[in-house]
Amino acid sequence: MLAPPVQRLVTELGKLPGIGQRTAQRLAFHLLRVDGEEANALADAIREVKLRIRQCEICFNLADEPRCRICQDERRDPRVICVVEEFGDVLPVERTHEFRGRYHVLGGALSPIDGVDPEDLKLAELYRRVEGGEVREVVIATNPTTTGEATAHHIAGVLRERTPDVAVTRLASGLPVGGDLEYADEVTLGRAFSGRREIV
Amino acid sequence: MLAPPVQRLVTELGKLPGIGQRTAQRLAFHLLRVDGEEANALADAIREVKLRIRQCEICFNLADEPRCRICQDERRDPRVICVVEEFGDVLPVERTHEFRGRYHVLGGALSPIDGVDPEDLKLAELYRRVEGGEVREVVIATNPTTTGEATAHHIAGVLRERTPDVAVTRLASGLPVGGDLEYADEVTLGRAFSGRREIV
Repeated sequence: MLAPPVQRLVTELGKLPGIGQRTAQRLAFHLLRVDGEEANALADAIREVKLRIRQCEICFNLADEPRCRICQDERRDPRVICVVEEFGDVLPVERTHEFRGRYHVLGGALSPIDGVDPEDLKLAELYRRVEGGEVREVVIATNPTTTGEATAHHIAGVLRERTPDVAVTRLASGLPVGGDLEYADEVTLGRAFSGRREIV
Repeated sequence: MLAPPVQRLVTELGKLPGIGQRTAQRLAFHLLRVDGEEANALADAIREVKLRIRQCEICFNLADEPRCRICQDERRDPRVICVVEEFGDVLPVERTHEFRGRYHVLGGALSPIDGVDPEDLKLAELYRRVEGGEVREVVIATNPTTTGEATAHHIAGVLRERTPDVAVTRLASGLPVGGDLEYADEVTLGRAFSGRREIV
Protein backbone atom coordinates (compact mmCIF):
# COMPACT_ATOMS: atom_id res chain seq x y z
CA MET A 1 0.00 0.00 0.00
CA LEU A 2 2.99 2.33 0.50
CA ALA A 3 4.44 4.38 -2.32
CA PRO A 4 7.64 2.68 -3.61
CA PRO A 5 10.10 5.27 -2.21
CA VAL A 6 8.50 4.97 1.23
CA GLN A 7 8.55 1.18 0.99
CA ARG A 8 12.22 1.30 0.05
CA LEU A 9 13.02 3.47 3.07
CA VAL A 10 11.09 1.10 5.36
CA THR A 11 13.04 -1.84 3.90
CA GLU A 12 16.41 -0.13 4.40
CA LEU A 13 15.57 0.95 7.96
CA GLY A 14 14.36 -2.59 8.68
CA LYS A 15 17.86 -3.90 7.90
CA LEU A 16 19.25 -2.11 10.97
CA PRO A 17 19.78 -4.42 13.96
CA GLY A 18 16.87 -4.54 16.38
CA ILE A 19 14.60 -2.55 14.05
CA GLY A 20 11.52 -4.58 13.12
CA GLN A 21 9.00 -3.86 10.40
CA ARG A 22 6.73 -1.76 12.60
CA THR A 23 9.56 0.31 14.02
CA ALA A 24 11.00 0.81 10.54
CA GLN A 25 7.63 2.15 9.44
CA ARG A 26 7.42 4.48 12.42
CA LEU A 27 10.92 5.80 11.72
CA ALA A 28 10.13 6.26 8.02
CA PHE A 29 6.98 8.19 8.85
CA HIS A 30 8.98 10.34 11.24
CA LEU A 31 11.49 11.14 8.50
CA LEU A 32 8.60 11.98 6.18
CA ARG A 33 7.17 14.37 8.73
CA VAL A 34 10.34 16.29 9.64
CA ASP A 35 11.66 18.97 7.29
CA GLY A 36 14.07 18.11 4.49
CA GLU A 37 17.05 19.57 6.31
CA GLU A 38 16.74 17.27 9.33
CA ALA A 39 16.16 14.14 7.24
CA ASN A 40 19.04 14.96 4.90
CA ALA A 41 21.35 15.60 7.86
CA LEU A 42 20.94 11.92 8.70
CA ALA A 43 21.53 10.85 5.09
CA ASP A 44 24.65 13.06 4.98
CA ALA A 45 25.96 11.71 8.29
CA ILE A 46 25.69 8.15 6.95
CA ARG A 47 27.48 9.05 3.71
CA GLU A 48 30.19 10.98 5.51
CA VAL A 49 30.90 8.24 8.00
CA LYS A 50 31.38 5.74 5.18
CA LEU A 51 33.57 8.21 3.33
CA ARG A 52 35.76 9.49 6.14
CA ILE A 53 36.00 6.80 8.79
CA ARG A 54 38.76 4.24 8.47
CA GLN A 55 40.68 1.94 10.80
CA CYS A 56 43.52 3.33 12.90
CA GLU A 57 46.79 2.07 11.38
CA ILE A 58 48.08 1.08 14.82
CA CYS A 59 45.16 -0.30 16.82
CA PHE A 60 42.36 -0.72 14.18
CA ASN A 61 39.93 1.36 16.23
CA LEU A 62 37.73 3.82 14.29
CA ALA A 63 39.61 6.90 13.11
CA ASP A 64 39.10 9.87 10.83
CA GLU A 65 42.85 10.29 10.45
CA PRO A 66 45.55 7.63 9.90
CA ARG A 67 45.76 7.24 13.69
CA CYS A 68 42.84 7.25 16.11
CA ARG A 69 42.45 9.78 18.90
CA ILE A 70 43.66 7.37 21.56
CA CYS A 71 46.81 6.37 19.66
CA GLN A 72 47.48 10.09 19.08
CA ASP A 73 47.00 10.93 22.76
CA GLU A 74 50.45 11.25 24.42
CA ARG A 75 48.87 10.89 27.86
CA ARG A 76 47.73 7.34 27.12
CA ASP A 77 50.17 4.77 28.44
CA PRO A 78 51.72 2.86 25.50
CA ARG A 79 52.97 0.14 27.83
CA VAL A 80 49.53 -1.36 28.39
CA ILE A 81 47.35 -2.64 25.54
CA CYS A 82 43.72 -3.63 26.00
CA VAL A 83 42.65 -6.16 23.37
CA VAL A 84 38.96 -6.06 22.37
CA GLU A 85 36.95 -7.89 19.75
CA GLU A 86 35.12 -5.02 18.04
CA PHE A 87 35.47 -1.25 17.89
CA GLY A 88 32.13 -1.07 19.67
CA ASP A 89 33.90 -2.52 22.73
CA VAL A 90 36.28 0.44 23.14
CA LEU A 91 33.61 2.86 24.33
CA PRO A 92 32.32 0.74 27.26
CA VAL A 93 35.90 0.33 28.51
CA GLU A 94 36.53 4.07 28.13
CA ARG A 95 33.39 4.82 30.12
CA THR A 96 34.81 3.02 33.17
CA HIS A 97 37.73 5.54 33.36
CA GLU A 98 39.74 2.59 34.73
CA PHE A 99 42.00 2.17 31.74
CA ARG A 100 44.59 4.71 30.60
CA GLY A 101 46.51 2.55 28.13
CA ARG A 102 46.02 1.91 24.42
CA TYR A 103 43.77 -0.50 22.54
CA HIS A 104 43.97 -3.20 19.94
CA VAL A 105 40.79 -4.06 18.03
CA LEU A 106 40.89 -7.62 16.69
CA GLY A 107 37.91 -7.36 14.38
CA GLY A 108 36.13 -10.37 15.87
CA ALA A 109 36.81 -13.55 17.83
CA LEU A 110 38.22 -16.89 16.76
CA SER A 111 35.46 -19.24 15.66
CA PRO A 112 36.53 -22.14 13.44
CA ILE A 113 32.90 -23.18 12.82
CA ASP A 114 32.14 -19.73 11.41
CA GLY A 115 35.39 -19.80 9.46
CA VAL A 116 37.11 -17.16 11.59
CA ASP A 117 40.75 -18.27 11.84
CA PRO A 118 43.74 -16.43 13.40
CA GLU A 119 44.67 -14.84 10.08
CA ASP A 120 41.20 -13.25 9.82
CA LEU A 121 41.85 -11.18 12.94
CA LYS A 122 44.45 -8.46 13.57
CA LEU A 123 46.57 -10.92 15.57
CA ALA A 124 49.86 -10.67 13.64
CA GLU A 125 49.61 -6.89 14.08
CA LEU A 126 49.08 -7.33 17.83
CA TYR A 127 52.11 -9.60 18.20
CA ARG A 128 54.24 -7.15 16.23
CA ARG A 129 53.15 -4.30 18.52
CA VAL A 130 53.95 -6.32 21.62
CA GLU A 131 57.30 -7.40 20.21
CA GLY A 132 58.15 -3.74 19.67
CA GLY A 133 59.54 -3.81 23.20
CA GLU A 134 57.58 -0.98 24.82
CA VAL A 135 54.58 -3.05 25.96
CA ARG A 136 54.60 -4.39 29.54
CA GLU A 137 51.05 -5.76 29.82
CA VAL A 138 48.35 -7.02 27.50
CA VAL A 139 44.86 -6.95 29.04
CA ILE A 140 42.64 -9.31 27.07
CA ALA A 141 39.11 -7.93 27.14
CA THR A 142 37.43 -10.22 24.62
CA ASN A 143 33.85 -11.14 25.52
CA PRO A 144 33.26 -13.77 28.24
CA THR A 145 31.78 -16.11 25.61
CA THR A 146 33.06 -19.38 24.16
CA THR A 147 34.67 -17.66 21.18
CA GLY A 148 35.97 -14.76 23.29
CA GLU A 149 37.54 -17.17 25.79
CA ALA A 150 39.09 -19.24 23.00
CA THR A 151 40.56 -16.09 21.48
CA ALA A 152 41.94 -15.00 24.86
CA HIS A 153 43.64 -18.35 25.40
CA HIS A 154 45.01 -18.42 21.88
CA ILE A 155 46.56 -14.94 22.28
CA ALA A 156 47.91 -15.74 25.76
CA GLY A 157 49.57 -18.90 24.39
CA VAL A 158 51.28 -17.09 21.53
CA LEU A 159 52.42 -14.14 23.66
CA ARG A 160 53.78 -16.40 26.40
CA GLU A 161 56.00 -17.99 23.79
CA ARG A 162 57.01 -14.95 21.75
CA THR A 163 57.25 -12.31 24.49
CA PRO A 164 57.55 -14.15 27.82
CA ASP A 165 58.40 -10.96 29.74
CA VAL A 166 55.07 -9.29 28.92
CA ALA A 167 52.25 -9.86 31.44
CA VAL A 168 49.05 -11.18 29.86
CA THR A 169 45.91 -10.56 31.94
CA ARG A 170 42.20 -11.16 31.47
CA LEU A 171 39.24 -9.14 32.76
CA ALA A 172 37.69 -10.67 35.88
CA SER A 173 34.48 -12.66 35.53
CA GLY A 174 32.00 -12.68 38.38
CA LEU A 175 28.72 -11.33 39.66
CA PRO A 176 27.65 -8.06 38.03
CA VAL A 177 27.55 -5.19 40.54
CA GLY A 178 23.97 -4.67 41.69
CA GLY A 179 23.12 -8.21 40.60
CA ASP A 180 21.44 -10.89 42.64
CA LEU A 181 22.87 -14.33 43.52
CA GLU A 182 19.44 -15.84 42.98
CA TYR A 183 19.47 -14.86 39.32
CA ALA A 184 23.13 -15.57 38.55
CA ASP A 185 23.76 -18.42 36.14
CA GLU A 186 25.94 -21.23 37.46
CA VAL A 187 28.90 -20.47 35.20
CA THR A 188 29.07 -16.83 36.36
CA LEU A 189 28.62 -17.87 39.99
CA GLY A 190 31.32 -20.53 39.55
CA ARG A 191 33.68 -17.87 38.19
CA ALA A 192 32.82 -15.59 41.09
CA PHE A 193 33.83 -18.40 43.48
CA SER A 194 37.07 -19.36 41.78
CA GLY A 195 37.99 -15.68 41.49
CA ARG A 196 37.12 -14.85 45.12
CA ARG A 197 39.38 -12.41 46.92
CA GLU A 198 40.23 -11.93 50.56
CA ILE A 199 38.44 -8.99 52.17
CA VAL A 200 41.09 -6.54 53.33
CA MET B 1 35.95 9.72 22.46
CA LEU B 2 34.28 9.08 19.09
CA ALA B 3 35.63 10.56 15.87
CA PRO B 4 33.48 13.60 14.88
CA PRO B 5 31.81 11.97 11.84
CA VAL B 6 30.79 9.00 14.01
CA GLN B 7 29.55 11.32 16.76
CA ARG B 8 27.53 13.24 14.19
CA LEU B 9 25.90 10.04 12.94
CA VAL B 10 25.10 8.97 16.51
CA THR B 11 23.53 12.40 17.14
CA GLU B 12 21.41 12.25 14.00
CA LEU B 13 20.27 8.68 14.68
CA GLY B 14 19.45 9.71 18.26
CA LYS B 15 16.93 12.25 16.93
CA LEU B 16 14.75 9.43 15.62
CA PRO B 17 11.78 8.66 17.86
CA GLY B 18 12.38 5.89 20.38
CA ILE B 19 16.11 5.72 19.59
CA GLY B 20 18.16 6.50 22.71
CA GLN B 21 21.88 7.23 22.91
CA ARG B 22 22.92 3.59 23.32
CA THR B 23 20.76 2.38 20.46
CA ALA B 24 21.98 5.22 18.23
CA GLN B 25 25.54 4.10 18.95
CA ARG B 26 24.70 0.50 18.17
CA LEU B 27 23.08 1.51 14.87
CA ALA B 28 26.03 3.76 13.97
CA PHE B 29 28.47 0.93 14.63
CA HIS B 30 26.35 -1.35 12.50
CA LEU B 31 26.46 1.14 9.63
CA LEU B 32 30.23 1.39 10.07
CA ARG B 33 30.55 -2.38 9.84
CA VAL B 34 28.39 -3.01 6.76
CA ASP B 35 29.78 -2.30 3.30
CA GLY B 36 29.42 1.13 1.73
CA GLU B 37 26.70 0.00 -0.64
CA GLU B 38 24.33 -1.09 2.12
CA ALA B 39 24.89 2.03 4.22
CA ASN B 40 24.50 4.34 1.24
CA ALA B 41 21.29 2.55 0.21
CA LEU B 42 19.78 3.86 3.46
CA ALA B 43 21.16 7.36 2.87
CA ASP B 44 19.74 7.31 -0.67
CA ALA B 45 16.37 6.02 0.50
CA ILE B 46 16.11 8.94 2.95
CA ARG B 47 17.07 11.50 0.28
CA GLU B 48 14.71 9.99 -2.28
CA VAL B 49 11.75 9.91 0.05
CA LYS B 50 12.21 13.61 0.86
CA LEU B 51 12.60 14.38 -2.84
CA ARG B 52 9.79 12.31 -4.32
CA ILE B 53 7.12 11.93 -1.70
CA ARG B 54 4.42 14.57 -1.49
CA GLN B 55 0.84 14.77 -0.25
CA CYS B 56 -1.98 13.42 -2.42
CA GLU B 57 -3.86 16.43 -3.84
CA ILE B 58 -7.20 14.86 -2.91
CA CYS B 59 -6.76 13.10 0.43
CA PHE B 60 -3.31 14.33 1.67
CA ASN B 61 -2.06 10.78 2.13
CA LEU B 62 1.52 10.08 1.05
CA ALA B 63 1.96 9.90 -2.71
CA ASP B 64 4.73 9.76 -5.28
CA GLU B 65 2.39 11.14 -7.94
CA PRO B 66 -0.14 13.99 -7.71
CA ARG B 67 -2.69 11.44 -6.49
CA CYS B 68 -2.05 8.60 -4.07
CA ARG B 69 -2.54 4.94 -4.95
CA ILE B 70 -5.85 4.73 -3.12
CA CYS B 71 -7.34 7.83 -4.78
CA GLN B 72 -6.19 6.42 -8.16
CA ASP B 73 -7.75 3.02 -7.49
CA GLU B 74 -11.11 2.81 -9.31
CA ARG B 75 -12.16 -0.13 -7.13
CA ARG B 76 -12.12 2.01 -3.98
CA ASP B 77 -15.61 3.32 -3.15
CA PRO B 78 -15.58 7.13 -3.44
CA ARG B 79 -18.86 7.36 -1.51
CA VAL B 80 -17.22 6.56 1.84
CA ILE B 81 -14.39 8.64 3.31
CA CYS B 82 -12.38 7.56 6.34
CA VAL B 83 -10.93 10.58 8.15
CA VAL B 84 -7.63 9.96 9.99
CA GLU B 85 -5.24 12.25 11.85
CA GLU B 86 -1.91 11.28 10.28
CA PHE B 87 -0.76 9.40 7.19
CA GLY B 88 0.63 6.79 9.57
CA ASP B 89 -2.97 5.92 10.45
CA VAL B 90 -3.88 4.80 6.93
CA LEU B 91 -1.82 1.62 7.01
CA PRO B 92 -3.39 0.13 10.19
CA VAL B 93 -6.86 0.70 8.72
CA GLU B 94 -5.79 -0.87 5.41
CA ARG B 95 -4.47 -3.89 7.26
CA THR B 96 -7.94 -4.68 8.64
CA HIS B 97 -9.26 -5.20 5.06
CA GLU B 98 -12.56 -3.87 6.46
CA PHE B 99 -12.55 -0.59 4.60
CA ARG B 100 -12.86 -0.25 0.83
CA GLY B 101 -13.52 3.49 0.62
CA ARG B 102 -11.18 6.47 0.36
CA TYR B 103 -9.26 8.42 2.98
CA HIS B 104 -8.77 11.97 4.18
CA VAL B 105 -5.65 12.76 6.20
CA LEU B 106 -6.16 15.78 8.44
CA GLY B 107 -2.52 16.29 9.38
CA GLY B 108 -3.19 16.23 13.12
CA ALA B 109 -5.96 16.77 15.66
CA LEU B 110 -7.51 19.95 17.05
CA SER B 111 -5.66 21.09 20.16
CA PRO B 112 -6.11 24.76 21.08
CA ILE B 113 -3.48 24.50 23.86
CA ASP B 114 -0.88 23.37 21.31
CA GLY B 115 -2.07 26.03 18.88
CA VAL B 116 -3.68 23.56 16.47
CA ASP B 117 -6.84 25.27 15.20
CA PRO B 118 -9.29 24.13 12.50
CA GLU B 119 -7.42 26.10 9.80
CA ASP B 120 -4.22 24.15 10.59
CA LEU B 121 -5.85 20.89 9.51
CA LYS B 122 -7.14 19.83 6.09
CA LEU B 123 -10.72 20.46 7.23
CA ALA B 124 -11.85 22.94 4.55
CA GLU B 125 -10.62 20.41 1.97
CA LEU B 126 -12.62 17.66 3.67
CA TYR B 127 -15.82 19.71 3.68
CA ARG B 128 -15.34 20.56 0.00
CA ARG B 129 -14.92 16.87 -0.83
CA VAL B 130 -18.06 15.96 1.06
CA GLU B 131 -20.02 18.82 -0.52
CA GLY B 132 -19.03 17.46 -3.94
CA GLY B 133 -22.19 15.35 -3.72
CA GLU B 134 -20.77 11.85 -4.23
CA VAL B 135 -19.99 11.09 -0.58
CA ARG B 136 -22.60 9.18 1.43
CA GLU B 137 -20.71 8.46 4.65
CA VAL B 138 -17.79 9.97 6.54
CA VAL B 139 -16.17 7.54 9.02
CA ILE B 140 -14.22 9.55 11.57
CA ALA B 141 -11.22 7.46 12.64
CA THR B 142 -9.32 10.05 14.67
CA ASN B 143 -7.61 8.61 17.75
CA PRO B 144 -9.71 7.80 20.85
CA THR B 145 -7.89 10.59 22.76
CA THR B 146 -9.08 13.96 24.06
CA THR B 147 -7.87 15.79 20.96
CA GLY B 148 -9.02 13.05 18.60
CA GLU B 149 -12.50 13.07 20.16
CA ALA B 150 -12.68 16.88 20.04
CA THR B 151 -11.71 16.77 16.36
CA ALA B 152 -14.35 14.11 15.65
CA HIS B 153 -17.08 16.18 17.32
CA HIS B 154 -15.99 19.35 15.56
CA ILE B 155 -16.12 17.66 12.15
CA ALA B 156 -19.45 15.98 12.92
CA GLY B 157 -20.95 19.34 13.93
CA VAL B 158 -19.84 21.11 10.75
CA LEU B 159 -20.89 18.26 8.44
CA ARG B 160 -24.31 17.94 10.09
CA GLU B 161 -24.92 21.57 9.23
CA ARG B 162 -23.36 21.76 5.78
CA THR B 163 -24.23 18.31 4.41
CA PRO B 164 -27.11 16.96 6.55
CA ASP B 165 -27.76 14.03 4.18
CA VAL B 166 -24.30 12.55 4.66
CA ALA B 167 -23.95 9.98 7.48
CA VAL B 168 -21.15 10.76 9.93
CA THR B 169 -19.92 7.75 11.92
CA ARG B 170 -17.19 7.13 14.45
CA LEU B 171 -15.13 3.98 15.05
CA ALA B 172 -16.41 1.95 18.00
CA SER B 173 -14.57 2.17 21.31
CA GLY B 174 -14.51 -0.84 23.61
CA LEU B 175 -12.46 -3.72 24.87
CA PRO B 176 -9.59 -4.72 22.59
CA VAL B 177 -10.02 -8.24 21.18
CA GLY B 178 -7.95 -10.66 23.24
CA GLY B 179 -7.91 -8.17 26.11
CA ASP B 180 -8.88 -8.82 29.70
CA LEU B 181 -11.62 -7.06 31.67
CA GLU B 182 -9.36 -7.01 34.69
CA TYR B 183 -6.84 -4.81 32.93
CA ALA B 184 -9.27 -2.55 31.07
CA ASP B 185 -9.25 1.09 32.20
CA GLU B 186 -12.59 2.43 33.38
CA VAL B 187 -13.11 4.76 30.42
CA THR B 188 -12.65 1.95 27.90
CA LEU B 189 -14.87 -0.35 29.94
CA GLY B 190 -17.47 2.41 30.22
CA ARG B 191 -17.42 2.82 26.43
CA ALA B 192 -17.74 -0.95 26.03
CA PHE B 193 -20.89 -0.80 28.20
CA SER B 194 -22.50 2.18 26.51
CA GLY B 195 -21.72 0.68 23.11
CA ARG B 196 -23.00 -2.81 23.99
CA ARG B 197 -24.89 -4.69 21.30
CA GLU B 198 -27.53 -7.38 21.40
CA ILE B 199 -26.18 -10.83 20.72
CA VAL B 200 -27.94 -12.16 17.60
